Amino acid sequence: MASPFRTIWPTADRYVEVIDQRFLPHEWVVVQLHTFQEAETAIKDMIVRGAPLIGATAAYGIYLAARTCIEEHHERSFMDQAFEALANSRPTAVNLFWALNRMKARLEGAENLVETAWNEAQAIVEQDVETCRNIGVHGLPIIEALGAKKPGQRINILTHCNAGMLGCIEWGTVTSPIYQAKQKGLDVHVYVDETRPRNQGANLTAYELTRHGIPHTLIVDNAGGHLMQHGMVDMVIVGTDRTTRHGDVANKIGTYLKALAAHDNKIPFYVALPSTTLDLSVRDGLKEIPIEERNQDEVRYVIGKSAAGAIEPVLICPETTQAVNHGFDVTPARLVTGLITERGVCAPNEAAIMAMFGDLGLY
Amino acid sequence: MASPFRTIWPTADRYVEVIDQRFLPHEWVVVQLHTFQEAETAIKDMIVRGAPLIGATAAYGIYLAARTCIEEHHERSFMDQAFEALANSRPTAVNLFWALNRMKARLEGAENLVETAWNEAQAIVEQDVETCRNIGVHGLPIIEALGAKKPGQRINILTHCNAGMLGCIEWGTVTSPIYQAKQKGLDVHVYVDETRPRNQGANLTAYELTRHGIPHTLIVDNAGGHLMQHGMVDMVIVGTDRTTRHGDVANKIGTYLKALAAHDNKIPFYVALPSTTLDLSVRDGLKEIPIEERNQDEVRYVIGKSAAGAIEPVLICPETTQAVNHGFDVTPARLVTGLITERGVCAPNEAAIMAMFGDLGLY
Repeated sequence: MASPFRTIWPTADRYVEVIDQRFLPHEWVVVQLHTFQEAETAIKDMIVRGAPLIGATAAYGIYLAARTCIEEHHERSFMDQAFEALANSRPTAVNLFWALNRMKARLEGAENLVETAWNEAQAIVEQDVETCRNIGVHGLPIIEALGAKKPGQRINILTHCNAGMLGCIEWGTVTSPIYQAKQKGLDVHVYVDETRPRNQGANLTAYELTRHGIPHTLIVDNAGGHLMQHGMVDMVIVGTDRTTRHGDVANKIGTYLKALAAHDNKIPFYVALPSTTLDLSVRDGLKEIPIEERNQDEVRYVIGKSAAGAIEPVLICPETTQAVNHGFDVTPARLVTGLITERGVCAPNEAAIMAMFGDLGLY
Repeated sequence: MASPFRTIWPTADRYVEVIDQRFLPHEWVVVQLHTFQEAETAIKDMIVRGAPLIGATAAYGIYLAARTCIEEHHERSFMDQAFEALANSRPTAVNLFWALNRMKARLEGAENLVETAWNEAQAIVEQDVETCRNIGVHGLPIIEALGAKKPGQRINILTHCNAGMLGCIEWGTVTSPIYQAKQKGLDVHVYVDETRPRNQGANLTAYELTRHGIPHTLIVDNAGGHLMQHGMVDMVIVGTDRTTRHGDVANKIGTYLKALAAHDNKIPFYVALPSTTLDLSVRDGLKEIPIEERNQDEVRYVIGKSAAGAIEPVLICPETTQAVNHGFDVTPARLVTGLITERGVCAPNEAAIMAMFGDLGLY
C-alpha cells in the first residue's frame, strides 16, 4: 500500500468504515456505516469529502441499501429511494452521479443484489486506487522536469484545498505525483493553502503530507499571489470537482484566484483529475455548473483545537453580521496549463479532451 | 462627528486612549497610553493598526516621550530613543515615518517640548480626519456613477482588510466614500473579505459597518473572484500601507489576488489613500518594498469567540506543521483603476502622481 492507511474500508461483517474527516488533524475518529442513510449523512455532513471518496461512499451506500432491502424485505422501490437520496447528498460532485449510475447499471437484473452491489462497490474503490496511481505516473515527469531546471534546489508546489488521498482512497490526485516524486528521491516541498471556510488544506492536506513525510508550509489563502510574484512557487496543482468538455475547472472556492496569479506570473497551473470527474455534457463551466451555496456559519465560525484541547468553533465576526458561502468557483480553461489524468496529460480544450476521453461516453 | 466614536482620543489629564482592536468585534476594551514604550507596544502588538492610526499613535508616542523626558529630567537623547523605537515598531507603514518626521521637524528647537508635541500630535489627528473626509468627497462620485448605471439596484462594493475609520481616526479611507454614499441615501452594500490571517475584515470592517448601519456580507478571502465572475461586485476599494511613485500598491496580503480578479472581470479596482501613504522615493513596489514577515502562529491559529464567550485561539493544523506569514503583497499599478486621495482621483502612474503630489516633497 502506498499510503499508511485508506480512507474507506470494509469490516469483517461487511459494513463499511470511514474516517470522520471533520476531526482531522486533531483526532482520529472512525465511523461505521450500516445504512444508506448513514452513507448519505456521511456525504452531506462532510464526514467524507473529495469527489472520488464521495463516489466510493455512495457506491457502498447502495450496497448498504441493497443489504437493508433484502434483510428487511423491502420493495425494490426502496432502492430507488436510496439512489435518489444519495444523488441529492451533494450537488456539485459529478463522481457521485458517475458512481451511482455505475451501481444502477450493474444492479439492473442482478440475481444477487447484495453480492453484486458489494463487488461493484469494491471494484469502484480498487479502480480509484489504480486511477490515482496512474495520475501520479503521468504527473511525475512534470515535477521531474521542473527539478531538472533547478538542480540541487527544492521544487515548490502550491496546492489549494485537499485533493489528496483523504479525498480519494489511496495516493490522491494532486498528491499522487508528489508522493511518487518523494518516493523517487526528489526534493519536493508543498505550500498548503489553508482553504477557508472549511480549512481542508490546513486540516487535511497538512495532515496527510505530515503522515507521508512531505515537507510543507501552511499559508493563508491570501498568500499564494505574493509567493508567485517572488519566484517561490514552481508549479500549482489543484484538484477538481467537475471539469467540462472545454476544460473549465470547478473546484474549491478560491482556485480561480490562484489560477489568475499563476497565469500572471507564468507559473504552470495543473489540474489533477480522474476521468470520472470530466463532465462532457457541460461546455461553459461558468454558465452551466451550479455552485453549491453552503451554510453561512462555515464562514462566520472557524473550527480548531482550543488550548484546553477541545475541537470547537470560534466566532470571527459581529453576532449580527451575515455571510455568504459559495462552495466552489470555476477556473476558465484559458488559465489551465494541463489536466493530469490517469491516461496522460491533456490540454484543456475540447479537441484534446475528446481525443483522449471521447470513448468513455461520459454523459 | 461623522462616526459614533473616534479611535484615539486625549484624556482630561493629557494621556491618550485607544481601543484595543484585538478584542473587536467581541469586546470594547480601551487602553490608556502613558509612555512612548506603551505607544510602541500598541503599534507592535497591533492594539492599534492601519497606517493613519499608526501614525497618530506614533505622534502621541513622541508627545508622551517628551512628557516623560521633562517630568523625569532625562537627557534629550531620550527623545532619540523614542524616535528610534517608534520608527522600528512596524516596518511597512510609511505613515509612521511621515508622522515621526513631522514631529521631529516641529520639535527641533521648540521652546516648550511637551506643549509643542501635544499640539502637533493633535494637529496630525485633525488633519487625518479632514483628509479622510475629503477622500470620501472624491470617492463618492465614483459610487454615484455606478449607481446611475443600475437605478433601483444595490451598489455592491468589495473590500479587503480594514481601511476603515478603525484604521484612521474618523471616516476611514475606503469607508469614507461608502459612509458618504450612505448619508446621501445611496443603496450601498459591502462584501467584506475576512482577511486572514488576522481577520481584520471579519473583526473590524464588519464591526464598523455594523456601527454605521451599512448593509454588508462577510465572505472568505477565496470568494471574491467567484462573485466578480458572476456580476455580483460593482467595484473594489482597498486601502494601502504604501503606494509608490509608479502607482504600485502595497496592502494587506491577498489584495493582489483581488486586483487580478477585478482586472479579469473588468471591474473597477480603486485604492483609497491619504497622500501621506505615498512614498515617492520608491518606484517598483515589487522589488523595493520590504514585506514584513510576521509570527507563523497567526496562520496556524485563528482567534475568535468560543461558545463559552471567551476570546481565544484555536489551532487549525497539525501540531508539527509550520507556516509562513507575509503580511503584505504588492499590487502592480497596471491592475489599479485609480487612487482616491484627499486631493482627487489620481491615475496610478508617475506622471499623474507627480502632477498631483509632486509639491509635497514626500521623501
